[in-house]
Amino acid sequence: MEAKLPRHTVMRLSLYRRLLLKYRYLDEPYIFSHDLARMLGIKAVKVRHDLMQLGVSGDRRKGYHVNSLLGRISDKLGRQGEAVVLVGMGMLGHSLLRHMQGSENPLRIVAAFDIDPGKVGKTFDGIPCHGIASLTDIVAQQQAGIAILAIPPDDVAGVLPLILDSGIRGILNYTSLHLDVPEGVIVRNADPMASLDEIAYYIDA
Amino acid sequence: MEAKLPRHTVMRLSLYRRLLLKYRYLDEPYIFSHDLARMLGIKAVKVRHDLMQLGVSGDRRKGYHVNSLLGRISDKLGRQGEAVVLVGMGMLGHSLLRHMQGSENPLRIVAAFDIDPGKVGKTFDGIPCHGIASLTDIVAQQQAGIAILAIPPDDVAGVLPLILDSGIRGILNYTSLHLDVPEGVIVRNADPMASLDEIAYYIDA
Repeated sequence: MEAKLPRHTVMRLSLYRRLLLKYRYLDEPYIFSHDLARMLGIKAVKVRHDLMQLGVSGDRRKGYHVNSLLGRISDKLGRQGEAVVLVGMGMLGHSLLRHMQGSENPLRIVAAFDIDPGKVGKTFDGIPCHGIASLTDIVAQQQAGIAILAIPPDDVAGVLPLILDSGIRGILNYTSLHLDVPEGVIVRNADPMASLDEIAYYIDA
Repeated sequence: MEAKLPRHTVMRLSLYRRLLLKYRYLDEPYIFSHDLARMLGIKAVKVRHDLMQLGVSGDRRKGYHVNSLLGRISDKLGRQGEAVVLVGMGMLGHSLLRHMQGSENPLRIVAAFDIDPGKVGKTFDGIPCHGIASLTDIVAQQQAGIAILAIPPDDVAGVLPLILDSGIRGILNYTSLHLDVPEGVIVRNADPMASLDEIAYYIDA
């Protein structure tokens, strides 16, 4: 197995991809590494090092071909079409579903779950909503590896063990709670409050 | 002015706060640094170093008093009651508003903005929704420092200059686009796709 890239490199690759997607449909889809660096506020030498690691080389006169670079980044980030389940179909869950359905990312939501009998059995933006009791079966069926957790904090203690038992290995956590997970399970906290805390700390009065 | 803490320290303080909030109402609201470390998957020596920097000391027998520690962290993170504006009252914006209104964080949303005439002039969960043209005036009136950006990508080119002109100094960006901002403006990207990319990369096949 190829060694994993460091976290900051992965974040930069995701940033490059996000930026490059803007230029994809231009007439002249080439970009210079120093322009990428400038637009992202990253040192040019770092960008060139990342792109070198990807094994793409730029044209000295025109720069890097945007679509080739996009393809190479997507190969590197890998896991095309990873199946994701969405746990919690409240307003936040539903809006995340809609956001993802409208994007071009290869990750896709395959099923949603809720405890509200009024939601179970219904379909939201094309995705079926199941009762939380069928989580394990459906995660196995769909070979889903990632769960988006968008439930009220009071439900976390009851729902998290089901998610962990199901074989899910990555959780994007929209609750305000810290999740205790066994080693090998990856959690990223997406609670908007934590990000706002951090922004508030750094802006100068 | 006190020197700013490094970003990773701020993120850990925000994590500690999130975790400690769970224990606040317990009968015996004390916690040991090694328990904090274990629950957060952080080295105990690092936790003790952070707490020492906060100037709180634990009781050798009982550990740290949870409520005092919470108070000290909130002092350190500062900017109590910073005013936040929400730009984009689509489904995602509305759900973020509801999420924040339901939390105990001192940051508060003071106004929302949209371009949809059907939303302008209405009130959502107690927050008035204004037309985007009044952004500059209202940001000044409310002395808001932070904007949450939850608009479709196609609207970013038109709306971002208004936000930057208004004097906003921090942006929590829910769009999938990279934002070009002048030095001194802080952007944190909260696009769920970027976090999912990162999780997908690290979970093992």
